[in-house]
Amino acid sequence: MNGAESLVKTLLGGGVDVCFTNPGTSEMHFVAALDAHADMRCVLGLQENIVTGAADGYARMTGKPAATLLHCGPGLGNGFANIHNARRSDTPMVNIVGDQATYHREYDAPLTTDVEAIAGATSHWVRDCISSKRVASDAADAIREANTAPGRIATLILPADTAWGAANGPAETEAPPPPPLPDGRTINPIAKMLKGDEPTVLFLGGAALTVEGLEMAARIAQATGSQLLAQMSNARVERGAGRVPVDRLPYPVDKALERLAPYRHMVLIGAKDPVAFFAYPGKPSALRPKGCKLHSLAQPGDDVLGALEALADQLGVTDDPITTAGLHQPPVPAGPLDPDVIAAVVASAIPENAIVVDEAITTGRAFFPPTFHSEPHSWLQINGGAIGIGMPLAAGAAIACPDRPVLSLEADGSGMYTPQALWTQAREGLNVTTVVFSNRSYQILLGEMAGVGVENPGPKALDMLELDRPALDWPSLARGMGAEAGLAEDGETLAREIDRGFACEGPYVIEARL
Amino acid sequence: MNGAESLVKTLLGGGVDVCFTNPGTSEMHFVAALDAHADMRCVLGLQENIVTGAADGYARMTGKPAATLLHCGPGLGNGFANIHNARRSDTPMVNIVGDQATYHREYDAPLTTDVEAIAGATSHWVRDCISSKRVASDAADAIREANTAPGRIATLILPADTAWGAANGPAETEAPPPPPLPDGRTINPIAKMLKGDEPTVLFLGGAALTVEGLEMAARIAQATGSQLLAQMSNARVERGAGRVPVDRLPYPVDKALERLAPYRHMVLIGAKDPVAFFAYPGKPSALRPKGCKLHSLAQPGDDVLGALEALADQLGVTDDPITTAGLHQPPVPAGPLDPDVIAAVVASAIPENAIVVDEAITTGRAFFPPTFHSEPHSWLQINGGAIGIGMPLAAGAAIACPDRPVLSLEADGSGMYTPQALWTQAREGLNVTTVVFSNRSYQILLGEMAGVGVENPGPKALDMLELDRPALDWPSLARGMGAEAGLAEDGETLAREIDRGFACEGPYVIEARL
Repeated sequence: MNGAESLVKTLLGGGVDVCFTNPGTSEMHFVAALDAHADMRCVLGLQENIVTGAADGYARMTGKPAATLLHCGPGLGNGFANIHNARRSDTPMVNIVGDQATYHREYDAPLTTDVEAIAGATSHWVRDCISSKRVASDAADAIREANTAPGRIATLILPADTAWGAANGPAETEAPPPPPLPDGRTINPIAKMLKGDEPTVLFLGGAALTVEGLEMAARIAQATGSQLLAQMSNARVERGAGRVPVDRLPYPVDKALERLAPYRHMVLIGAKDPVAFFAYPGKPSALRPKGCKLHSLAQPGDDVLGALEALADQLGVTDDPITTAGLHQPPVPAGPLDPDVIAAVVASAIPENAIVVDEAITTGRAFFPPTFHSEPHSWLQINGGAIGIGMPLAAGAAIACPDRPVLSLEADGSGMYTPQALWTQAREGLNVTTVVFSNRSYQILLGEMAGVGVENPGPKALDMLELDRPALDWPSLARGMGAEAGLAEDGETLAREIDRGFACEGPYVIEARL
Repeated sequence: MNGAESLVKTLLGGGVDVCFTNPGTSEMHFVAALDAHADMRCVLGLQENIVTGAADGYARMTGKPAATLLHCGPGLGNGFANIHNARRSDTPMVNIVGDQATYHREYDAPLTTDVEAIAGATSHWVRDCISSKRVASDAADAIREANTAPGRIATLILPADTAWGAANGPAETEAPPPPPLPDGRTINPIAKMLKGDEPTVLFLGGAALTVEGLEMAARIAQATGSQLLAQMSNARVERGAGRVPVDRLPYPVDKALERLAPYRHMVLIGAKDPVAFFAYPGKPSALRPKGCKLHSLAQPGDDVLGALEALADQLGVTDDPITTAGLHQPPVPAGPLDPDVIAAVVASAIPENAIVVDEAITTGRAFFPPTFHSEPHSWLQINGGAIGIGMPLAAGAAIACPDRPVLSLEADGSGMYTPQALWTQAREGLNVTTVVFSNRSYQILLGEMAGVGVENPGPKALDMLELDRPALDWPSLARGMGAEAGLAEDGETLAREIDRGFACEGPYVIEARL
């Protein structure tokens, strides 16, 4: 048994049975080892940000890590942005980065890079494997790290000779430490505060946005007169009919400040103290008002559901009935597409038990409220701000949940960072329907430019924010990668095209022209 | 004047007047400042590896750096691979990486990353600007660093508040230190050795591959009975009719060892001691034979042309006549495409004074010899092994040399890392004709797999090396990004399509199906 074989067996033993790959020469033994294990599903991406974004989507839907296979420092660099996004989503991920053979490094061959430096900039855990006999135990450590709550990025650097050298056999993966459960010292003062009558927001993230978490949070809010609010962006929220509707903090700083202004207390439940996405001249970095006191019930890495249950118990509301959203699908509006028309179409088009991937950026800001009453669905957002995650994330989510339809809401600017994901969707025959909102600009930046105080941008500045010269033809792009495609310029056509997308075999791409 | 304005004025004053951009919120003031300066040409890329690859192509053709504008750590990550390639090509480059405002960093907003760590992994020089009053002098230092021989990667991190805060004005860029000129202690022993009769190879890289460098090297070789050989891959070689033909070291280790076996002496002239691109079990890392003595006439950062001239002078051959390649264009072969047919078509299709960009990988290995006798041209190769450079490099070279036609030879696997470059080519109306060699596989890896000792790869391994499920439709992809396109399956059609490509306005893409 060589190091690569011991690695694959260790991954499988540790519950990692999907590997998203973009291999090169230094990974050929690993590829051969993958080949010999029928239990390991391998999914090829044509660029590494597809690989890492898909691994994120897979883990968000399964709760367990996928492996990625990347080629040397530049391959890791190509996949860096979506690892960053995954890290910001507390996604578990095991990256295997093939590298020069240990003895070959000193020769400084062209692909030699400081892999540890790049890996360290976006991983919680990095190890450079030094011997074929250590590959298995290093991999077991990586899996344990990835599975440590709330989910971590573990990167194992695999020099080629450690893959082809002799190994002793696979290693067993230890269970990660259990997430800490907040005790009475944390819970009692929060319960006491909640019994008071000062305006309070329960600020939710992570596991608090599961069906169970939302229901417990809703009981607590209902009993204490406090309000629920989710973080600005979230890895996954369970939404739609039968679920507790919860709004999210708005992105624009002024709107976020306004939204939080009424509160004297904020209870963090799997969420972080909210901050502005960017700094703007003359505006605060912290979004929580100065007079609003912070209480932390559970950090993202804590046992968030356990903490909610303990708090509900302390308040005596564990079994209170709660109100959830009813099913209400708005009629499909006619007329040309604008964000409101699209939002109504999306709200009625979400199929039951769908996964919705949201990288619609400006166009998508209107989507959240109308979809509270859609069919029940999981909503996955871009969470680290590095655009180009949507289509890879959709691919990974579809691989995780082959029985659930995926609706991928994509902005044209963001989509062009990782269009290659459509090829992987086609290759794997995934039931993903992508709507590309084609406003032919980096629309968000037009707003941001004003936001940072740039008045009257000139033609050259505007030129750098507009994508209309030439206009992208998304159906042509999609067909070039083996996906079927259509075009919509009004609400009725968009609704029909989305139906067609879910009906057709494999992926379907709709250019929604605004 | 704000920091961003002082930066743009400093760049222009330092001779940097092209900026390849993919901006985000933290760069809006820089975008506004670019807008206010008509002398600065701005070129938008839809993904950052397009931006950095184009900056490389621009600098290879002009000998001076372009600026890049990137957005935070993930933007730098997206452009990492082509910065790596540029570094391996000794390309001068000034990267401006916008980042969170200094006072906003501690809030750990979603896009916050360790930008210095990523930048450090691929830059010769990194500075995190700490004040708007320092932006101009930091930028002047960056330009000087980039221009230091043989060409360096300088990365300036620009927190948003240093862009919008007050500056004192632009700074003047100091001249870089002159490249060291080797003296008699280096030159005399080499001249003496060359007068002996032991088999010697003059191993050429960098400035030794300019017209002037090649001619001096040819005089020395001719007078001393030594032979010329270029590095395996090179940033730029001047080739074709009227130039000194020089072959390059082959990529496969066995062929490289065989090629170098006859020599007892190797003289490095702007080149490095050759090493294997990867390690292979049982094969050496160093390609120079054990009995072959190394002599270094000039390191890449030395005055390579000055050293060649001094050596020629010492040998008394400065004005010797030399033989250069004649013009010989092979007839266009009929029949289906294979690497030899393609090589013959390419050899006759290269227009006079063309720039040829070579990322043809396996299909391209046959291209070098038949093109010795093509019309004179510059040949740019991928040089750092991180595939996905070809189409961005072609865009940058075309922007540098608007009067020279660019023939971009691309592999289908490599091309899919950065297809967005075609949009930039279309937007800028660049005269680039791209031939995509569509073998529908990572063909090189099939060879590499055998090379590292994997016998009889199974269906899953092969599946990860093949791109035929679904087949990519390059004309459809190209049209989706605004480029005209065609298809060729035989030699005559390919020749006709290349002619059409150069005749048409803007870029043209040909899928050459093997």
